[in-house]
Amino acid sequence: MIRIGIMGYGNIGKGIEANIKYFPDMKLVAIFTRRNPKSIIKKTNTSIVSVEEILNYKNKIDVLVLCGGSATDLPIQSVLYAKDFNIVDSFDTHANIPTHFNKINNQALENNNTAIISVGWDPGMFSLNRIYDEAILPNGNTYTFWGKGISQGHSDAIRIIPGVIDAKQYTIPVKSSIDKVLSGKSPILITKDKHSRDCFVVIDEKADKNLIEKTIKEMPNYFNEYNTTVNFITQEELNTNHSKMPHGGLVIRTGKTNNITHTISYQLKLDSNPEFTSSVLLAYARACYRLNNEKNYGCKTVIDIAPKYLSFKTNEELRKEML
Amino acid sequence: MIRIGIMGYGNIGKGIEANIKYFPDMKLVAIFTRRNPKSIIKKTNTSIVSVEEILNYKNKIDVLVLCGGSATDLPIQSVLYAKDFNIVDSFDTHANIPTHFNKINNQALENNNTAIISVGWDPGMFSLNRIYDEAILPNGNTYTFWGKGISQGHSDAIRIIPGVIDAKQYTIPVKSSIDKVLSGKSPILITKDKHSRDCFVVIDEKADKNLIEKTIKEMPNYFNEYNTTVNFITQEELNTNHSKMPHGGLVIRTGKTNNITHTISYQLKLDSNPEFTSSVLLAYARACYRLNNEKNYGCKTVIDIAPKYLSFKTNEELRKEML
Repeated sequence: MIRIGIMGYGNIGKGIEANIKYFPDMKLVAIFTRRNPKSIIKKTNTSIVSVEEILNYKNKIDVLVLCGGSATDLPIQSVLYAKDFNIVDSFDTHANIPTHFNKINNQALENNNTAIISVGWDPGMFSLNRIYDEAILPNGNTYTFWGKGISQGHSDAIRIIPGVIDAKQYTIPVKSSIDKVLSGKSPILITKDKHSRDCFVVIDEKADKNLIEKTIKEMPNYFNEYNTTVNFITQEELNTNHSKMPHGGLVIRTGKTNNITHTISYQLKLDSNPEFTSSVLLAYARACYRLNNEKNYGCKTVIDIAPKYLSFKTNEELRKEML
Repeated sequence: MIRIGIMGYGNIGKGIEANIKYFPDMKLVAIFTRRNPKSIIKKTNTSIVSVEEILNYKNKIDVLVLCGGSATDLPIQSVLYAKDFNIVDSFDTHANIPTHFNKINNQALENNNTAIISVGWDPGMFSLNRIYDEAILPNGNTYTFWGKGISQGHSDAIRIIPGVIDAKQYTIPVKSSIDKVLSGKSPILITKDKHSRDCFVVIDEKADKNLIEKTIKEMPNYFNEYNTTVNFITQEELNTNHSKMPHGGLVIRTGKTNNITHTISYQLKLDSNPEFTSSVLLAYARACYRLNNEKNYGCKTVIDIAPKYLSFKTNEELRKEML
């Protein structure tokens, strides 16, 4: 049995806890938290342990799954815990992946640990598809569309506007552009051609609706380059209709061999982004454990890992049943 | 430059010859044939060489791409040439892959060569998706649909019926079943629910149409378990409207984490089956060369190979640009 630890008891941590039952070669040893463990309402019988005690678990855990956020948690935690544990994280700030990788690589190599970073669906499964697609059909173009789904970062950006009480933002792929790409036309698409943004906003009754709508629509990077719709709703409506965390998207490559057109597309429809991410993290935790057993130390990403390392099945079974 | 040899100058061999220009780190050294090289009309300036001279090329070729058929060519050729060369093949008789693998593995290991077998889209890219999907979403069901596309085996089966002059058979996925799967219902589908078969047949004018149609529709394994349509057409119509080799299909997995539904789908639309297969073979020829340089000998399949080995880009570039 591969002994798993969870660091951080948010949505992804809870997803790991709930879904580990589908991974028959794994067991959950402990959930580590920065909060007072006694303040936490447990969902299963797994021990909830203060992060301060984590080194007592050094020989009781094979892989520590880091379930914190990419903005402030993982840049510190992944480097720190790669000293004493094999780790897997879902670091998703694309621009900072090379720096994150190098720091963790040094730490893991010095301590004979294995780390797999940026696991999930993007970065993660979408990255794999972008790489496979370009390699097998080099004469072509790749397009990534996201959504329909909740963007946490964009929702947060709305929430900090004065007068806003709560908000959810959906990223919506532009269907006519997807159809154009799928038809093999290789269109040039600017930002607003690919996605639109749909905002559901709860405001203080004294706040200025027009000013808030303007502030959202003109916000640089987040909204100003998109077709953005702002809907003002009540907190009750937000809680009832917008409390789920669906997401997904589409990676499409169209290209030619010898003037003949081919289209490759990979689509995810996820009714819960953190639930799915937690399941991908567990598959890569299995790979992490196996690579470490092979003395394959250092930091890895999904690009470095052969598919066989993810599967519960033996190589013989995979060749016989799955190839 | 990775020096490539082609064994067999059929559709796939011609595809390799035409598409190697999209692989900037590769060059084509020679095309080997069992026919008289002088009888062959060349498409490029590449030397066409009798197979009897192949051992003269032992140190001039890094990877030999075997482009023969799975029925009679590859079971002999792949084992034979894995003695003196790194090889890649597209062996696609699923049931015989384990035997094929073991023979080639022994030969390649004994001679410090690397072989990658069963490369293409199914087996190949579809296999990868089946394996990744099951690993990352273990609580679910996977479905593979093929088509719309020409099945060579089914076309051949019609052609050997007395009175038939020529024939092409299209495998067609049943749209209502695909929709059912995509909706997350996890239906149980029997053979005829998944695919139908559409036949275009040219017959001798004296032949008995009804008897031929009955013979096709009742043919065990090939047609009797499917909804089969037989269309009698002229040779001219067949040549004009059915001479292309489109294919493709869809791998879908639906599953649940913690009672929440997710759908993963991978679709290929290929305007030419052999052209696309040749492009996938070249990407894996690159991997074959690199694995051999790392002294990673023996037989491999797509399940054993990390994505990074397929890409022209460096690992640093992949992390920065593609992850």
